[in-house]
Amino acid sequence: MATPLYLDHNATAPLGPGVLQSMLPFLEQQHFNPSGDYGPALEVRAAIEGARREMANLVGAAPRQIAFTSGGTESTHAAFHYALDVESPQDRAVVVSAVEHSATKGAAKAWQGRGFEVCSLDVNTSGQVAKETLERVLADKRPTLVSTILANNETGVIQHIHGWAELIHAAGAHWHVDAVQAPGKLALDAPALGADWISFSGHKFGAPKGIGALFTRKDSSSPSWLVGGGQEHGKRGGTENVAGIIGLGRAAKNALEQVQDRAGLIELAHSRDELEAHILEGVPGSRVHGSQSPRVPNTTQLFLPGCPSEILLPLLEAKGVLASAGSACDATHHAPSEVLMAMGCTPEEAACSLRISLPFHFDPEARTQAACAIVEAANLLAVHNPQ
Amino acid sequence: MATPLYLDHNATAPLGPGVLQSMLPFLEQQHFNPSGDYGPALEVRAAIEGARREMANLVGAAPRQIAFTSGGTESTHAAFHYALDVESPQDRAVVVSAVEHSATKGAAKAWQGRGFEVCSLDVNTSGQVAKETLERVLADKRPTLVSTILANNETGVIQHIHGWAELIHAAGAHWHVDAVQAPGKLALDAPALGADWISFSGHKFGAPKGIGALFTRKDSSSPSWLVGGGQEHGKRGGTENVAGIIGLGRAAKNALEQVQDRAGLIELAHSRDELEAHILEGVPGSRVHGSQSPRVPNTTQLFLPGCPSEILLPLLEAKGVLASAGSACDATHHAPSEVLMAMGCTPEEAACSLRISLPFHFDPEARTQAACAIVEAANLLAVHNPQ
Repeated sequence: MATPLYLDHNATAPLGPGVLQSMLPFLEQQHFNPSGDYGPALEVRAAIEGARREMANLVGAAPRQIAFTSGGTESTHAAFHYALDVESPQDRAVVVSAVEHSATKGAAKAWQGRGFEVCSLDVNTSGQVAKETLERVLADKRPTLVSTILANNETGVIQHIHGWAELIHAAGAHWHVDAVQAPGKLALDAPALGADWISFSGHKFGAPKGIGALFTRKDSSSPSWLVGGGQEHGKRGGTENVAGIIGLGRAAKNALEQVQDRAGLIELAHSRDELEAHILEGVPGSRVHGSQSPRVPNTTQLFLPGCPSEILLPLLEAKGVLASAGSACDATHHAPSEVLMAMGCTPEEAACSLRISLPFHFDPEARTQAACAIVEAANLLAVHNPQ
Repeated sequence: MATPLYLDHNATAPLGPGVLQSMLPFLEQQHFNPSGDYGPALEVRAAIEGARREMANLVGAAPRQIAFTSGGTESTHAAFHYALDVESPQDRAVVVSAVEHSATKGAAKAWQGRGFEVCSLDVNTSGQVAKETLERVLADKRPTLVSTILANNETGVIQHIHGWAELIHAAGAHWHVDAVQAPGKLALDAPALGADWISFSGHKFGAPKGIGALFTRKDSSSPSWLVGGGQEHGKRGGTENVAGIIGLGRAAKNALEQVQDRAGLIELAHSRDELEAHILEGVPGSRVHGSQSPRVPNTTQLFLPGCPSEILLPLLEAKGVLASAGSACDATHHAPSEVLMAMGCTPEEAACSLRISLPFHFDPEARTQAACAIVEAANLLAVHNPQ
């Protein structure tokens, strides 16, 4: 059987160019503990600092503002910890948007269990939080932390969050941004954004699974997230995932090149738009979620009437196309997407939605193959499930 | 220059036989997110479960009792979270031995910051907590959690902890055991030990850095440690470090073979003893820390009078021998070992101590090279630093 066409890059991306090669020396001869006190250990430490510079460069930060973690979920939990562990929950709120990833919802729930009120920021049908919505919640509650996603993992919708830092800080709250889906798709200037913490996950942009990063705007007196051997400048203890960090450094370099390649990003968005056009034309009643919003160029999520993803996805797989209903982290639950319902979809519409997330280079043959497979499968299903 | 003789295996071990080979497919073609809903993702999920069985086999546990984490520090913090997050700190204590790794001390300190009293269990000059010491602390305090190290990372001393589970549980407390230094060196039967949680770190036994495991005796109603996509049966959210997990599975298989190779372990202990004898004979006034206790067979920590490790270690490195003063996680601080001071050493004695931790196969030529280098360097120093 031919290699399937992998269109689930928002779930996880394969290792990028040069990433495995950069990791191998640190899995083989350079196996030393970076906390060791001899020359070869110092070389490993220096390599980690090189990777930190690459990650910092990607987001316009200083290296000391970057700490490595085990992934996006840990980064988000660390940010919540920094913001909330020193606070009394009495009458204080944690504010998260209605379209957050399960890691953010989970972190909020954990702190709800410790006494914080959790409030949701509603989104409109384009997946955007209106500025007035944020202002109202900031005025009505006493938020300690606001957490919002930058580029939605399902729809690709990019929040209009410029100017939010001032609002949130003026209300006395901290701001965490989940930018897990941004690297390589969206130019990032972390200091200009003004968020206190920004979470990243390596495997979403060509580093291996199990490594992530957290940007911190300024040093605080918060206690360490994991307290141990003082690694990561005391911010996150535990022997470093050296090979993962080196791979993330290389992937960050690749991601920066990608976002600097304006023509490449435009071509990718064009390719995505062509794919959408082909499907919209071929599947009566279909529509694109969040199409009124700016979106990252590799992502589309479509409503396909009469096509429950539980049935559509195996049909597509049989045709050699691997895609998803929405978040991979929720894929095994088979519940309709909360993101789409927050954007006004009915549970039925949400359940009949397909997420396609493309690689940076997506050639026209693959596009045609994908579009034809999706149109055929959707029409086959629609015949049997008339609306 | 010849490859240095690496005698710091307790800081981190190189990848074991077959480990990198087992990981490579999951860094290359099998890059899928294990939460994906298509065949190739299910294969990745199945491979993770295979690795979980290997880790479970190593410690005599059921696979569902094993959750993967990013390492020993995270495992320990997760155990503390499970034990303490649902408790009110009012008048409750966390009890840790005086010879714990910085990860455990750090976790205790974090919970001290949340209102728990932290009590220390003193050790004798052999590095052992007397049973009466434990009984007294359990009677005097209202402990919620007791955390003890099984095999000490510096001295290799194995605590006599059999029978402790009953005492600790009878006092209404939970028990966490840091077994990070045990795999491959010590046969483990996690259920028989009776601890509620046991922490492991992959890179200490031939898996890569950045992956660990936590044994949990029984399901509890505690909230998830990292809450997110429901991975690790809801115990630890976040996309799995797939390649790390697969590598850990293979390393666990190797470690089980090692501990089942009784002759090999005896030979290793013999080799370590010969090395010690050579040094004790060659360095007047030297002695082995914890020599009255059972110790893991690859570890020795010696007091070498007049030989501050800050000076001795670079001398040894120049002679092609890489070793350490004690914990790698504390190596960059250059403070005298708290473990040794808890065992009755003066700060000067602790500062003049050398840890040597051997690979499983340590040939006589390497032993002679190491012993001669240490004796020469120590005598050179002693001439200039007469006691």
